[in-house]
Amino acid sequence: MRPLEGIKVLDLTRALAGPFCTLMLGDYGSDVIKIEMPGTGDDTRQWGPPFIGDESAYFLSVNRNKRSLTLNLRDEQAQQVFLKLAADADVIVENFTPGVMGRFNLSYEAVQQVNPGIVYCSISGFGANGPYQSRPAYDQIMQGISGIMSITGDLGGDPQKVGIAVADIGAGMWAAFAVMTALFHRATAGGKGQYIDLSMLDAQVAWMTYQAGYYFATGEAPKRLGAAHPTLVPYQAFMGQDGKYFNVAVGSARLWDRFCQGIDRMDLHQHPDYLDNGQRVTHRSALVPLLQEYFLKKDADEWVADLQAVSVPAGPINDLADVFNDPQVLHREMLLDMPHPTLGSIKQTGLPIKFSGTPGALEKPPPLLGEHNHAILTALGYSDADIDRMSGTGVI
Amino acid sequence: MRPLEGIKVLDLTRALAGPFCTLMLGDYGSDVIKIEMPGTGDDTRQWGPPFIGDESAYFLSVNRNKRSLTLNLRDEQAQQVFLKLAADADVIVENFTPGVMGRFNLSYEAVQQVNPGIVYCSISGFGANGPYQSRPAYDQIMQGISGIMSITGDLGGDPQKVGIAVADIGAGMWAAFAVMTALFHRATAGGKGQYIDLSMLDAQVAWMTYQAGYYFATGEAPKRLGAAHPTLVPYQAFMGQDGKYFNVAVGSARLWDRFCQGIDRMDLHQHPDYLDNGQRVTHRSALVPLLQEYFLKKDADEWVADLQAVSVPAGPINDLADVFNDPQVLHREMLLDMPHPTLGSIKQTGLPIKFSGTPGALEKPPPLLGEHNHAILTALGYSDADIDRMSGTGVI
Repeated sequence: MRPLEGIKVLDLTRALAGPFCTLMLGDYGSDVIKIEMPGTGDDTRQWGPPFIGDESAYFLSVNRNKRSLTLNLRDEQAQQVFLKLAADADVIVENFTPGVMGRFNLSYEAVQQVNPGIVYCSISGFGANGPYQSRPAYDQIMQGISGIMSITGDLGGDPQKVGIAVADIGAGMWAAFAVMTALFHRATAGGKGQYIDLSMLDAQVAWMTYQAGYYFATGEAPKRLGAAHPTLVPYQAFMGQDGKYFNVAVGSARLWDRFCQGIDRMDLHQHPDYLDNGQRVTHRSALVPLLQEYFLKKDADEWVADLQAVSVPAGPINDLADVFNDPQVLHREMLLDMPHPTLGSIKQTGLPIKFSGTPGALEKPPPLLGEHNHAILTALGYSDADIDRMSGTGVI
Repeated sequence: MRPLEGIKVLDLTRALAGPFCTLMLGDYGSDVIKIEMPGTGDDTRQWGPPFIGDESAYFLSVNRNKRSLTLNLRDEQAQQVFLKLAADADVIVENFTPGVMGRFNLSYEAVQQVNPGIVYCSISGFGANGPYQSRPAYDQIMQGISGIMSITGDLGGDPQKVGIAVADIGAGMWAAFAVMTALFHRATAGGKGQYIDLSMLDAQVAWMTYQAGYYFATGEAPKRLGAAHPTLVPYQAFMGQDGKYFNVAVGSARLWDRFCQGIDRMDLHQHPDYLDNGQRVTHRSALVPLLQEYFLKKDADEWVADLQAVSVPAGPINDLADVFNDPQVLHREMLLDMPHPTLGSIKQTGLPIKFSGTPGALEKPPPLLGEHNHAILTALGYSDADIDRMSGTGVI
């Protein structure tokens, strides 16, 4: 049994923030019905290369465990179909710009009339109110506004974007937690649903944690620190002979002893400039290049092994080819294959939550556009003739 | 009413991944009892500067809405107190290295005997099994292993760490979603609890989405792209006259027209080298420096206003001082004050989930070490004499 078995989710989302939320709900057993525009579907179906066959790698990466229904929500009959589905649904997730669902006559107020228990989650760039509410959201621009770019990258260099779309993914995760919290409340406190207004900007700000606390305590915005630590040396990335990078974290006097031993440089341990961390911070500009040059003598993996052998925290800086060949990643089933109706077998990232009693599973491959129209509409009571008519008139 | 009112969480976590999970549970109404080592408490209480009074900015940033109970879990009597609390609890979250809870005689199996409904979540670096299971976890080293550093930073430059501890925060968010999913399952399917084995590495790998899909489709690891887009120009960060940066995203031919108009450079629009995006990608090394030099004529905010006026996606790259003075952030109550027993008023980041029916709230300031010992132990039935004795013998 899946933990969310029996939960029906109407998914009106495209691209990443919303689809990541509904991916989480689908992976653990919800019936997620992904509602897409007839003819084109989720924009990301076209976002390639790369493609595998006719499917974009982007779309395939966040849409398994969902069924696809096409509905042109500008059409009144499509809106009626949606409300029939909603009457019997538990959750709606949408990530249109605020106001669009109202123009489709499918606002929370409208849906609530047919289903007072609905949990209705809107994800937008800036939220349903405030001076920026109608601005569109792009991950890169949100990463700039939220402050995360200002603290990512080398001090003295340009601000950097995080290599994954964290503004989208973070918002999707907050939304999934919010939906579960509202479903739990509904299950334990009398069946009432509610509306959830989730903004990508709020979601990012809530992650600022220590960096926000630093600003609150000092009145100064934290600075970019690159891959180094401001007050510990050596605590950063270095490059090995093979051009691969590795991290090492010498966070205490005892670790400095072991570090010098592990890399066979007891001369540094005796050196008067590097006796304690304060000295090493002072002499950082001499010590770091010296170490970097020395580390060009062996491959990154060899240094990591040498350092781990003396219990100094160290690890490789893997690229994604390394990651998906890593023995721990494979042991934990974070790389899985699943059958796909047109592509044979496709690769997917695995399920990060290991429940002892009710594990999730890869049950449905990322759907073809409208793949489940007939099944879903038949279950709602529409006849084959109805479905043909809706198909001919562009409703579905 | 809070959505998680009545839920009792025993929080055996330190630093960030676990505390972020229990922060989420506390913000929305759970009674979170933070169990800390007598005398020292959560390591992050000492992680400064900066401090505000005697409290570290780090600790203050992720521990509101929790009560503090000191328990030396190596002590048998403390273990008995813990099991008494656990008998009546809904959730346990811990982030010790795998095996430590067993050495405290407080493994899932032990707790399950006194409370079969318990939802018991362990957060660790690599999970409860596999070749790396016993390795310690540090955010920087996890960011290296998970692949996120390999795709963050400029192409040709060093890999960069994300400026916030995303490996910790991401794991905390997966854990909170997992706990809610298990609680929902328990509430709707007969009251059974379960064990959740959550690894920071799995949690990061599950975020790789498109970048994982790119690797699966092409067999090649995605590269670092800095703050620029590989196949769209201009789509990146630029610096203004005031040294501040801003993002601009010219994602279509129509946006290039508007961009040239918005910055008053119709000469570029007519220029044969820049007629379409393909041309602009080819001539990127001429166009980008030309634009960067031109953008030094006005402040970043002025360029953002000019571009937004013609509906070109653009936005500032805010530092955290900008963020916490931004009108949208303030409108959305993402900066809040709360009273603190020794510090007067402290600033906190706000609550990113806006529930229409059951909003969260800041109800309890980050606790002093052992602040709630007396209240919690009295409620368990211990007398003042018992409590004094436990205090004198280092049990609490």
